[in-house]
Amino acid sequence: MQRTRIVEVLSREAGGPVLVKGWVRTRRDAKGFSFLEINDGSCLANVQVVADHTEDLLSVLDALGTGAAVGVSGELVPSPAAGQRWEVRAGAIEVYGLADAEAFPLQKKRHSDEYLRTIAHLRPRTNKYGAMLRVRSEMALAVHDFFRQRGFFHVHAPILTGSDCEGAGEMFRVSNLEAEQAAAMPPDRRAEEEFFGRPSGLTVSGQLEAELMALALGGVYTFGPTFRAENSNTPKHAAEFWMVEPELAFADLVDDMDLAEALVRHLVAHALSACAADLALFGNYVDKNLLPTLEDILAAPFARVTHAEAIGILKASGRSFDYPVHELSDLQTEHERFLCEEHFKRPVIVHDYPKEIKAFYMRLNDDGRTVAAMDLLVPRIGELCGGSQREERLDVLTRRMAEVGLSEEQYWWYLDTRRFGTAPHAGFGMGFERLLMLVTGIANIRDVIPFPRTPGHLEF
Amino acid sequence: MQRTRIVEVLSREAGGPVLVKGWVRTRRDAKGFSFLEINDGSCLANVQVVADHTEDLLSVLDALGTGAAVGVSGELVPSPAAGQRWEVRAGAIEVYGLADAEAFPLQKKRHSDEYLRTIAHLRPRTNKYGAMLRVRSEMALAVHDFFRQRGFFHVHAPILTGSDCEGAGEMFRVSNLEAEQAAAMPPDRRAEEEFFGRPSGLTVSGQLEAELMALALGGVYTFGPTFRAENSNTPKHAAEFWMVEPELAFADLVDDMDLAEALVRHLVAHALSACAADLALFGNYVDKNLLPTLEDILAAPFARVTHAEAIGILKASGRSFDYPVHELSDLQTEHERFLCEEHFKRPVIVHDYPKEIKAFYMRLNDDGRTVAAMDLLVPRIGELCGGSQREERLDVLTRRMAEVGLSEEQYWWYLDTRRFGTAPHAGFGMGFERLLMLVTGIANIRDVIPFPRTPGHLEF
Repeated sequence: MQRTRIVEVLSREAGGPVLVKGWVRTRRDAKGFSFLEINDGSCLANVQVVADHTEDLLSVLDALGTGAAVGVSGELVPSPAAGQRWEVRAGAIEVYGLADAEAFPLQKKRHSDEYLRTIAHLRPRTNKYGAMLRVRSEMALAVHDFFRQRGFFHVHAPILTGSDCEGAGEMFRVSNLEAEQAAAMPPDRRAEEEFFGRPSGLTVSGQLEAELMALALGGVYTFGPTFRAENSNTPKHAAEFWMVEPELAFADLVDDMDLAEALVRHLVAHALSACAADLALFGNYVDKNLLPTLEDILAAPFARVTHAEAIGILKASGRSFDYPVHELSDLQTEHERFLCEEHFKRPVIVHDYPKEIKAFYMRLNDDGRTVAAMDLLVPRIGELCGGSQREERLDVLTRRMAEVGLSEEQYWWYLDTRRFGTAPHAGFGMGFERLLMLVTGIANIRDVIPFPRTPGHLEF
Repeated sequence: MQRTRIVEVLSREAGGPVLVKGWVRTRRDAKGFSFLEINDGSCLANVQVVADHTEDLLSVLDALGTGAAVGVSGELVPSPAAGQRWEVRAGAIEVYGLADAEAFPLQKKRHSDEYLRTIAHLRPRTNKYGAMLRVRSEMALAVHDFFRQRGFFHVHAPILTGSDCEGAGEMFRVSNLEAEQAAAMPPDRRAEEEFFGRPSGLTVSGQLEAELMALALGGVYTFGPTFRAENSNTPKHAAEFWMVEPELAFADLVDDMDLAEALVRHLVAHALSACAADLALFGNYVDKNLLPTLEDILAAPFARVTHAEAIGILKASGRSFDYPVHELSDLQTEHERFLCEEHFKRPVIVHDYPKEIKAFYMRLNDDGRTVAAMDLLVPRIGELCGGSQREERLDVLTRRMAEVGLSEEQYWWYLDTRRFGTAPHAGFGMGFERLLMLVTGIANIRDVIPFPRTPGHLEF
């Protein structure tokens, strides 16, 4: 018989013969029979197996405890128990692997997130992390659905790079040579032995390359890993994280804000509809306000204010913030959360920032002081998306680059797109893990990444 | 008026007002009017614009040449020209950016692939590379569709890693320190200053991590960048490439072969149906045999032979190969192509290889000599997928690791999955670029990657 996944078993219309395979979550023994709760990761729910104490079944049941891998063939029958429609009456049980009850690191109790990070290879077998991984998968696919429906092409920006997108993020260095080897070589020899003939690093953003492709294909988006070698131990930062970066030709800042708002709405709505069971778990055990928070996001259009207006609101709030607020302030999480959670009580897009606090490629507004940048802020997280209309005017762009000390030679290819058939375009980046923190209520980025990379942590 | 993408303009049912934006491919002047061919990357086809020599239009037309970015508003009307249903009668033309005809690197002639690699930032604006990028996008989405339909979860394996999947591929080293800095530090200090406290590198495969997740979620797949620091300048190798790695719990080698065959069939069929216009271009200009080759792949089940049988066929062929064939030979491209193109005349899955030439995690067969490995070979490319049933028996696995000199300590987490609820499972890896070479006929991996990374090449 073919194995059926538990998610399909539990949604069957009729009973009948069935073969399920999965891991024992619990065993309870009664007089004459035992209950096994089996989970195969296909959904949050277990299927209940009822195994009579026949000679054959008893011979295997005895050793079965939490964590064992089994195949159970039998009959799917209506369950007399409350809260479940079906159960499996076991005919035969095949044991693939046992789990020693003393040694198995996942005991039948609630473990702390900190402990579970030390066994990230096993935590996917818990309800919470199984749910997180299913939501992560569904959200990744929903990103692709969103852009596909709008005619964007998915592009792969390079991970290895010779340039630093903003001169901002600290980059990891990459080499085929050991440090001792490289350091011992004279410069000529080293350039020869270096794989790329020059220093290389891990990308901090695929934006510049996405721009090149948007200016040929119209609308594109990247969805890939990006890296920051920043030694910050916060719940929001990881050294390796996934970013979604759409870039759209013939678009301005308003188009950009519209696209970001539509993306966030699509993803939140999809999480609520496609991941209802997993989100209910998070709502029960992680953040009691999760579902209302997500429903509120869909309830009204996002607020939109200029940076100057946002600063005015913060100043007028009478709040004392840890980071003082002034005209050239980049917003801190405390400011972002005040705007979303207390002032507007919904997501907020802040736009038109002072040029001094934004990157060189952002389009200079006619006032000469601000750039056409925008950040999309959501409750609990703060900044979820950040983007801009790009500076498409060659003369303005090269002037900005000179101001911030970037060399035209290094960016010749980027400037070429402004030399030949330049066009207005805009884009943004969305941190995929921040989205997951939003839709799951999980507060630490380490717990929405299968195997998180943070300072000092490279396990698995 | 809202911009309409050209792919949608050309498939309209009725004419009427329209606004298109894109890049001028050619301008031809006639008496009293000019033709502009406009491409916006949404599809291979251009839309033809007819611009009467009114005073307004003449004032902009004069400067417009190949490469200029424009917006054209006007009327979509039936075209009298052969081969196109619609054309746009221009009302107004807005010029976003010109392209100096002397300086623009994409002239109106056929450029060599080698030249176009030096301008990879502009080659997406050519027919061939635009088509390649559209096919690349569509194939990536088709990978997700395939696995989603089968209930697999998409997982992100880490890129930064402390372990080397097979001890096989040469890894890039990653550090937050400059080589001179690192080399000058005493070991204690260096461990402290290293971001992760120990040496780190770029993943050569996400398989081991995918196994961890399959043994919790059932079926999973990774789709991400992988890296090899191998100094091989061949048309099939790049330092950075994307891999698809499914992993399925409760599966054996036959399930694995079935899954790989189904995936390749799905992707080839989808390319033929969803990318017909772009594939026709490749069939006309890149490989005349492309479409028959792809249709042949779908025509019959793939051949399946053991490695021993394959060696027998090669020996009996009477061919003199560059690489001699014997019982412990890993197959070379020439052997793979002979099997596919000449002997079986269809894709071939070679399975059950001698353990000596395969990785430690592959399941030992009962004969004690071979492992449950498989490679899927296709015409022109050779190996497209490689995989195996994994060794799920702790004792057999640790014995194999000792034989090949791998430390149990380093892989404690991998071995844990065999200690606690181990289960049969299988998976494979498919090189995404090799798939693209198959469906486009493009012979060099450098030409199916937006910005290829190969020895000495790190541009853009």
